[in-house]
Amino acid sequence: MAELSGLDKIVSLSKARGFIFQSSEIYGGLGAVYDYGPLGAELKRKLNSVWWSAMTQRHENIVGIDAAILMHPKVWKASGHVDSFNDPMIDDKQSKRRYRADILIEDHIRKLRANGDDARADEVQHLLDTTGTRKSLTADLYDIIMEEQIKGPDSGAFDWTEVRQFNLMFKTQFGATASGEDDTVYLRPETAQGIFVNFNNVMNTSRTQLPFGIAQIGKAFRNEVVARQFVFRMREFEQMEMQYFVKPGTDDDEYDNWKRDRLEWHKSIGIREKNLRFSDHPVDKLAHYAKSATDIQYHFPIGWQEVEGIHNRTDFDLTQHQEFSGKKLEYFDPQTQERFVPYVIETSIGLDRCALMVLSDAYREEEVSGDKEGSTETRVVLKMHPKLAPITAGIFPLIKKPELIDVARKIQKDLTEDYKVQYDEKGSIGKRYRRLDEAGTPFCITVDFDGLEDQTVTIRDRDTMAQERISWDRVGEVIRDGIKKWKPAD
Amino acid sequence: MAELSGLDKIVSLSKARGFIFQSSEIYGGLGAVYDYGPLGAELKRKLNSVWWSAMTQRHENIVGIDAAILMHPKVWKASGHVDSFNDPMIDDKQSKRRYRADILIEDHIRKLRANGDDARADEVQHLLDTTGTRKSLTADLYDIIMEEQIKGPDSGAFDWTEVRQFNLMFKTQFGATASGEDDTVYLRPETAQGIFVNFNNVMNTSRTQLPFGIAQIGKAFRNEVVARQFVFRMREFEQMEMQYFVKPGTDDDEYDNWKRDRLEWHKSIGIREKNLRFSDHPVDKLAHYAKSATDIQYHFPIGWQEVEGIHNRTDFDLTQHQEFSGKKLEYFDPQTQERFVPYVIETSIGLDRCALMVLSDAYREEEVSGDKEGSTETRVVLKMHPKLAPITAGIFPLIKKPELIDVARKIQKDLTEDYKVQYDEKGSIGKRYRRLDEAGTPFCITVDFDGLEDQTVTIRDRDTMAQERISWDRVGEVIRDGIKKWKPAD
Repeated sequence: MAELSGLDKIVSLSKARGFIFQSSEIYGGLGAVYDYGPLGAELKRKLNSVWWSAMTQRHENIVGIDAAILMHPKVWKASGHVDSFNDPMIDDKQSKRRYRADILIEDHIRKLRANGDDARADEVQHLLDTTGTRKSLTADLYDIIMEEQIKGPDSGAFDWTEVRQFNLMFKTQFGATASGEDDTVYLRPETAQGIFVNFNNVMNTSRTQLPFGIAQIGKAFRNEVVARQFVFRMREFEQMEMQYFVKPGTDDDEYDNWKRDRLEWHKSIGIREKNLRFSDHPVDKLAHYAKSATDIQYHFPIGWQEVEGIHNRTDFDLTQHQEFSGKKLEYFDPQTQERFVPYVIETSIGLDRCALMVLSDAYREEEVSGDKEGSTETRVVLKMHPKLAPITAGIFPLIKKPELIDVARKIQKDLTEDYKVQYDEKGSIGKRYRRLDEAGTPFCITVDFDGLEDQTVTIRDRDTMAQERISWDRVGEVIRDGIKKWKPAD
Repeated sequence: MAELSGLDKIVSLSKARGFIFQSSEIYGGLGAVYDYGPLGAELKRKLNSVWWSAMTQRHENIVGIDAAILMHPKVWKASGHVDSFNDPMIDDKQSKRRYRADILIEDHIRKLRANGDDARADEVQHLLDTTGTRKSLTADLYDIIMEEQIKGPDSGAFDWTEVRQFNLMFKTQFGATASGEDDTVYLRPETAQGIFVNFNNVMNTSRTQLPFGIAQIGKAFRNEVVARQFVFRMREFEQMEMQYFVKPGTDDDEYDNWKRDRLEWHKSIGIREKNLRFSDHPVDKLAHYAKSATDIQYHFPIGWQEVEGIHNRTDFDLTQHQEFSGKKLEYFDPQTQERFVPYVIETSIGLDRCALMVLSDAYREEEVSGDKEGSTETRVVLKMHPKLAPITAGIFPLIKKPELIDVARKIQKDLTEDYKVQYDEKGSIGKRYRRLDEAGTPFCITVDFDGLEDQTVTIRDRDTMAQERISWDRVGEVIRDGIKKWKPAD
């Protein structure tokens, strides 16, 4: 593994141990779409559950919803996605392949630098950085490609169409009218709009007052042309979003509160503080709906990257939906007797990125003593928070003897009420430990002959590899305490 | 509510209390697509979680996966969906609207009966029942429509195209090649195939032996032309599927085991046994992939309908994927040293139907004494299993006095560690009980002045309306026991 880069190690472990597979792998895969294997599915479920309870159980004024992926097409007119959720694309007339114009130019800059032509690289980079507003963007990018005579990566030809905006939403035809017109629906590119269009429904059924939040976890889809870096940028991905409706004027304070709250959450799932930071968006780079915005970034093996966004979306979305739907989306304040459109503070985290963050932060290689006297070997271990571990405990009989197996099976049965546990009787105890180290399993319980005498087992800590001998009836309690008291090792 | 039919009552309560809303309602809705509100989202999550742990935690030889909705298009060639997942459609040339031919005929039969022409209705019904195999089906249906001179429901005209097969899969374009050809991908119409194509991946990473199962919960999509009956037949829905891989020859026994196991599961979530039954598929009506099949039916307000299917799919799917992918999908038996393609027993349940079953089975109207002496009123209550209840407990101060509120808030805080709880101080205690009865909340805790003296509260049982006085420190325990010991009332 030593030659693999940081991200490649995670990718490799993910496949080998069953966290994440390429989608439809036996058919050659589907680009930028991934399937979660047994360990990955459990990790994702636990992140989902920890986020959901932090939002909807711990905050009495936040409720959850689960809106459909398919929504009325007007939703995406109102949100602005139909008109401006685009990437600038250019077609190579020879190869018939399509490329993102800005990425072509970035690749060209990299090539210039590789060839030592830094001066020109800087010049092109400057041109790229100063391409105009959305309106002149396509023309500006086209001009650069023409001037630099960038060739088609597949054909080697210099034979381009113009640069055009390409919408990132997946489209499909809905229902079965004969004409097939007017039936285009989109796979939602974000979950947020499902919350906004249900604002009245939730307000009317939940009897809640401002400020209140609506949380949602669900799939979203973006037809990314250049999708790469493993599960970091996927065409099908999962979001965990919460829209917090507040009285205008209180929005700056609430925004600050949620920044703090969300950073604390990342620490609460065991992410090391040194690997987390805020990256505030400068005012001149804010999205059209945002008054202020920040990313919580994590120090991934590929560098500092966004894992969560916190935005003050103002009343932009509700106002747009009022206009497009003709329905009032207002709050009536019983104290001041005023009616107004609330402001919205959004927290939006990618569940897949979050899983990748957990794996990245947990991944360790350690030199430990090997099976042979005096030898050493590399131990790969995922030191993730025990509450996120796909398998909470391993149960091993020391060797395959019926009396040991019986006790191990009994303990397994008890723990199965509360935890996902794995029974394993194959190979040396050391090998069994290693397998579960790579799965991030925090506790391994071994039933040995000494223990039959005094009704004890050993319980081994994943992080320190320390073993403790405890009585059979304390196993559940030691695991419960271990989960509660865990802190990340540095 | 008295004039509403059984299903309409559920629909009405669902909207009024926030279980289920029409999708994109402010834009006029999207046909046969629904959003889950605060209570519905929690109910769905709990069903999801109870099913998942029954499968993957309680069975040590079943693991979960979470495959993507978008899959390689060849998957659906191999599965047979591209070629034969069709409905027979006919277009009215006048109105330009499209109809399902068999449904047109069914509606026609209903009209004949309504007009007292039972003899002819029987005759047409017989024709419909004996329409041929897939190949002659479209011609047979067309002949009936012609002979019966069935008119277009919207235009009133008798001006039809031929009957054609219309594929039920939603299509979309993937990636961004210039041509747009060969890029069609489908929204999966079932989750099962995500399990089959990952068979090798799971087998290689999970170190498991036959028999073993792979479980999955996820969205699936079908472009139903006639989608009706609330969440019973939706265009976007969620499945909970488990594929159990077994040695050929053991498949009949395993099929019987899973029939028993799954019926027990329905009882374990509190569904009354009298409302559950098997409906075995007769041999001549089996799907092309099935050796045997049964439905678990529930007695819905609309009649006995399938909520879960259990199928012996033989080696059909794995064999098809071997052929289309060119990859071996075999199991190597370490004992007999044989290689073979396993048989598959499938259990497949619709999560949305399951939620509708729980609501239907829980829904009760009861005459109870009203606020005024001697008066009665109707109490609507959802007597669902407490482990499924969206809100586990309500906490009420008897009146809005700081000393009562303080205690109520303290109990709320303690319970919030483990449960979704709702604090409510508005209106009479009776009204507060009724609101949570309609939400299916099994426990309501009231803090009163007597209780301040002796550190007690009353805890009220949703089903019996009996109140018990217990000490503050026993609240958690009483709830825990209440969930464990609950049995459905008749």
